[in-house]
Amino acid sequence: MAQKTNRQILLAARPVGMVKESDFKRHETAIPEPKDGEFLVRTIYLSLDPTNRGWMNAQDTYMPAIKIGEVVRGVGLGVVEQSKNPAYKPGDIVFGMVGWQDYHLGRAGDPMAMMVLPPGAPLVPSLSVFGATGLTAYFGLLDIGQPKAGETVVVSGAAGATGSVAGQIAKIKGCRAIGIAGSAEKCRWVTEDLGFDACIDYKRENVGQRLGETCPGGIDVYFDNVGGEILDTVLEQIKQNARIVLCGAISMYNAVELPPGPKNYMNLIIKRARMEGFIVTDFLPRFPEGIMQLMQWVGEGKVKHAEDIVDGLENAPAALNRLFTGANKGKLIVRVSAER
Amino acid sequence: MAQKTNRQILLAARPVGMVKESDFKRHETAIPEPKDGEFLVRTIYLSLDPTNRGWMNAQDTYMPAIKIGEVVRGVGLGVVEQSKNPAYKPGDIVFGMVGWQDYHLGRAGDPMAMMVLPPGAPLVPSLSVFGATGLTAYFGLLDIGQPKAGETVVVSGAAGATGSVAGQIAKIKGCRAIGIAGSAEKCRWVTEDLGFDACIDYKRENVGQRLGETCPGGIDVYFDNVGGEILDTVLEQIKQNARIVLCGAISMYNAVELPPGPKNYMNLIIKRARMEGFIVTDFLPRFPEGIMQLMQWVGEGKVKHAEDIVDGLENAPAALNRLFTGANKGKLIVRVSAER
Repeated sequence: MAQKTNRQILLAARPVGMVKESDFKRHETAIPEPKDGEFLVRTIYLSLDPTNRGWMNAQDTYMPAIKIGEVVRGVGLGVVEQSKNPAYKPGDIVFGMVGWQDYHLGRAGDPMAMMVLPPGAPLVPSLSVFGATGLTAYFGLLDIGQPKAGETVVVSGAAGATGSVAGQIAKIKGCRAIGIAGSAEKCRWVTEDLGFDACIDYKRENVGQRLGETCPGGIDVYFDNVGGEILDTVLEQIKQNARIVLCGAISMYNAVELPPGPKNYMNLIIKRARMEGFIVTDFLPRFPEGIMQLMQWVGEGKVKHAEDIVDGLENAPAALNRLFTGANKGKLIVRVSAER
Repeated sequence: MAQKTNRQILLAARPVGMVKESDFKRHETAIPEPKDGEFLVRTIYLSLDPTNRGWMNAQDTYMPAIKIGEVVRGVGLGVVEQSKNPAYKPGDIVFGMVGWQDYHLGRAGDPMAMMVLPPGAPLVPSLSVFGATGLTAYFGLLDIGQPKAGETVVVSGAAGATGSVAGQIAKIKGCRAIGIAGSAEKCRWVTEDLGFDACIDYKRENVGQRLGETCPGGIDVYFDNVGGEILDTVLEQIKQNARIVLCGAISMYNAVELPPGPKNYMNLIIKRARMEGFIVTDFLPRFPEGIMQLMQWVGEGKVKHAEDIVDGLENAPAALNRLFTGANKGKLIVRVSAER
């Protein structure tokens, strides 16, 4: 598995819709040698998230757009193989912007410093339930959604890495949790294994009608991972003082032209409701709190998590599309090299 | 001016787009005689607001839709002429749901009780700056928008009854206030008389470009009275943690089909921003605070207000359209009978 060169996947063109092979350029270069202050990281796992697709568009988002010719930006876990930086020792497992490549050269002045994981931390969960997706569920649901016991919480992308955790946290907080997912099998997992009260299969069922049946008193909190038509349908059934947590809009990342926004947004006035977006890194100072709480819940069996692991750096572009076709269940990860 | 019959304007058909004569039926009936617990109110002023148009649609809003054949619902001021209810004395000036008619019969069990104005209260300002529109500006800007000194506040409908007050409150709180209005004359009034820092004439200027020039650091608070394209344009230029106060959407009340929502709403995620609606009556317990504060500011000359008064109940339907063509400056009121 150990590479003798550094394989890199560069962005060759701005994708239109789903990514395709010609949007990328495969490149091989020498494995870099760390100079003073630098350290060499071998990539073990890449995290694939909808935001990767957003960064490939020409427009800057909460981070600058990836430039054509650059290594595709991506977070992941790696192991420090060589180091001329006292903060990082060979053997340390680090989390950060490794990029879609076998080796990443860390520098002391990098805008986003690599984080060293505590010794013994399990690698895969550190990228999912104890990583950005689990923390997005934790802070998004609790801080932005502010659910109260007895309330009804609807989660789209309920079989995804973030949605699956958000719904389970809603249950822990004494709420009813209704999921929306894209297959009967996913819905079964969400209700039977994760304990949601109900799950709507949006590919086979009428979402509006099923929301009416499963949320007869209306919706207090909507944790939105998908945007688009489902957001509009939910907006029709929100309760007074509802809160809509805008976590992402997976239906829109591949959009060639910006689709119309939610036409029912005026219900925010009628229902005195709030729709609010956030980015999980805003909660960085509180990450330890979130990780410790999630570890406790996972340990108690109250939060379950799943990962969908694709083997091989070369498969990263094709794997990314799995997020948008709904092929994945749980956190999508690419295994680039062996853990040990 | 005193009528011998009770002229009523009934809703005859659901308007499509702007209201037209055939949507209403003129009706005359005997002036009702109060029985035990009832009191007779002679309408003096009717308040015309965008929400009147919303209530005429088939769909319920925050209040039930007006039924076909009912007197058009509307708030206003009147004087008690006869009373068999100990809470109301002849001569009392009352505020409430008088409807589009010369006389309203109040009953003890009415769902929304008429409020008696303090003796000596000026009638016209009680319907505007000290009434629902002024209070909407006060609670919407301060409680939902939460502007901080030094921030940039953009107000659409800036020459309207609510927007004009919202911008002046923003100035009192130490913010920069940028208005958006529909004529050079309105913009002149907003900047020269009301003290906004700038005003964009959306009918003649490029709103996006002018917002860029007048809000070089971006927009912290947007007090939205209009919705539609202007909301979308503002969403492109919001700052981190921006707050969008959804007060109304005058561009949409006449819409035959619900137009697309704001396609740039995803900026709420990127900018960790919040878009929140409210209805002023939710703040009912705090109305005395709002009224006293507005009275103080008006007394000190810090808040100016304007009213556009149309004479004659018969002109109410045509006058309502003035709100949507942008013909009015300040609060639109219909004078139905003389104050004394």
